Amino acid sequence: MTMSSGDRPRRPTVSDVAAEAGVSRGTVSRYLNGGHWVSPEAEAAVAAAIRKTGYRINPHARSLATQRTNSVAFLLTESFERLFEDPNFARLMRGTSAALAERDVSLVFILAGSDVERRRARDFITQGHVDGVLLVSSHAGEPGLIEEIHRAGVPIIACGIPLGFERKLGWVAADDATGAREMTAHLRSLGRARIATIAGPRDTSGGIQRLTGFREELGEAFDPDLVEHGDYSRRSGRAAMAALLEREPGIDAVFAANDLMAAGALAELAERGIAVPGQIAVGGFDDAAVAAETTPTLTTMRQPFDRISQEMVRLLLEVIAGGIPAKITLPTDLVVRDSA
Amino acid sequence: MTMSSGDRPRRPTVSDVAAEAGVSRGTVSRYLNGGHWVSPEAEAAVAAAIRKTGYRINPHARSLATQRTNSVAFLLTESFERLFEDPNFARLMRGTSAALAERDVSLVFILAGSDVERRRARDFITQGHVDGVLLVSSHAGEPGLIEEIHRAGVPIIACGIPLGFERKLGWVAADDATGAREMTAHLRSLGRARIATIAGPRDTSGGIQRLTGFREELGEAFDPDLVEHGDYSRRSGRAAMAALLEREPGIDAVFAANDLMAAGALAELAERGIAVPGQIAVGGFDDAAVAAETTPTLTTMRQPFDRISQEMVRLLLEVIAGGIPAKITLPTDLVVRDSA
Repeated sequence: MTMSSGDRPRRPTVSDVAAEAGVSRGTVSRYLNGGHWVSPEAEAAVAAAIRKTGYRINPHARSLATQRTNSVAFLLTESFERLFEDPNFARLMRGTSAALAERDVSLVFILAGSDVERRRARDFITQGHVDGVLLVSSHAGEPGLIEEIHRAGVPIIACGIPLGFERKLGWVAADDATGAREMTAHLRSLGRARIATIAGPRDTSGGIQRLTGFREELGEAFDPDLVEHGDYSRRSGRAAMAALLEREPGIDAVFAANDLMAAGALAELAERGIAVPGQIAVGGFDDAAVAAETTPTLTTMRQPFDRISQEMVRLLLEVIAGGIPAKITLPTDLVVRDSA
Repeated sequence: MTMSSGDRPRRPTVSDVAAEAGVSRGTVSRYLNGGHWVSPEAEAAVAAAIRKTGYRINPHARSLATQRTNSVAFLLTESFERLFEDPNFARLMRGTSAALAERDVSLVFILAGSDVERRRARDFITQGHVDGVLLVSSHAGEPGLIEEIHRAGVPIIACGIPLGFERKLGWVAADDATGAREMTAHLRSLGRARIATIAGPRDTSGGIQRLTGFREELGEAFDPDLVEHGDYSRRSGRAAMAALLEREPGIDAVFAANDLMAAGALAELAERGIAVPGQIAVGGFDDAAVAAETTPTLTTMRQPFDRISQEMVRLLLEVIAGGIPAKITLPTDLVVRDSA
């Protein structure tokens, strides 16, 4: 390998390969372009020289021709703290990575939790380093970023319904409203009458839809005083539970819009010595790992994360291949454990 | 914006900008190349037209000219399980991201825990989508991957000394041997005489160096029977502790080569009803978050992760700019808590 200053090798060129193989640069070029008009002897010599020199085709020139990178980005518009607190993100990362493993497509992860990171993510993505984007966010606070990626012609498939882009982008979402109805109906079936909810953020489709399902199922029994909003973090669930109890000590059930908030609510109830499910039944949403680890274990709605991951990858590859972006809604399942 | 089939926009061209601005393509081109020979009126019209059409310079053409992408990869040759189990990886991800935040450089994360993922990572990196690589791995099992990236001329800075590439690559490492000596000396200073170690993997520089420091500090007192190797996971630490106790019930101190293994050892000791530090003192390495959460809290050697992250970024940008790859070793600090 040719060395320049220090230890760092310079990228071998066609000339290096030609010199090593003892052929002309034109022969190497013909070899690289499909091997027409190259003798078997020259072909073997060039192949050996490419191995020996470590030559690679200029990637930019190749991309310029094919306009494909064979890579996609998993774009998470969250902070590091949220990535490592909320296990749903890890499950989606793992699920999409596994779904791509059977294909010859690279996956890169981009975190964009701050404005600076979002600007850098936009630059990287719109400059053609990936063929498409798997968009995961629990907030709709990134319309500018999504709009710019979309305008640059880079295909996007969102996890959950992307508010403001419902019609422009493809997406894969759990049936949040129906899942919330089923959980609420389950709580009622236990004889509970004063059912509160710890709802998700108002700027997310999941947060809105789960509250809608809750309200629709309760109908006349719905009481806006029994609604508190959290941000899907454990801490916010605990604070919301405390606020609900201050306002309405007679609550006999709570539906939390995700399992982390439900775990926070259970911690608050335990500290106050309130029996679960004896005095208050608690239901969650997700079936995250934490649901099996709480005391008592958590009754929840299972989101089909593996299926969501697979469908996101399938839809994105379809759009990259020129297809029309599709929208897919997947059902959730009631998982009954000890808390309700 | 011009639309083609479906909802997906095609990328706007110079012609679209020229038509929108009411100027010639040549004027747009001169504007894009620095604005020479463009009237202020035309400049304003072109700028407005670029905003309106969403035009972007062809990224491949631009990269072809500058050979720079202004992005670097954080390459972690670990599985998802390890990423989410071992908090050191998250700290390095966060630290390098923060160090890059002040610069106009994008950061993408690539996980390569399997052979398939390593092949895809190699392709993405060597095809010119990033200017350099921050390499993080707890194993030296990827010489092929490192060699290929290095041969392709892509700068690499490793976290820890990259075995087999000590001289070829730049790296930033904690002074593992000295840190291990200090912890071992601390355990001896408590009057402990039968000191065991739960060592790290044999194919990592950190694993080797921390065992070396332990052995050197003990000198004549070193007993190979008091060495068990783990893989840096909590589970392996627990199993190693059990194995050591079966072999040598008279152990009065243990140095674990990282905090997760130390936490596993504490769990095993608690289950057996062995008092810490009364009967057995336990020391770790890292000062991970878990060190403050164990019972008793863990005495450990603090690795300067923020500093390591900053130096990795600084060295990588130097090499990308044409500098010679440097090697940096940083000291660790003894943090005394309750376990030793």
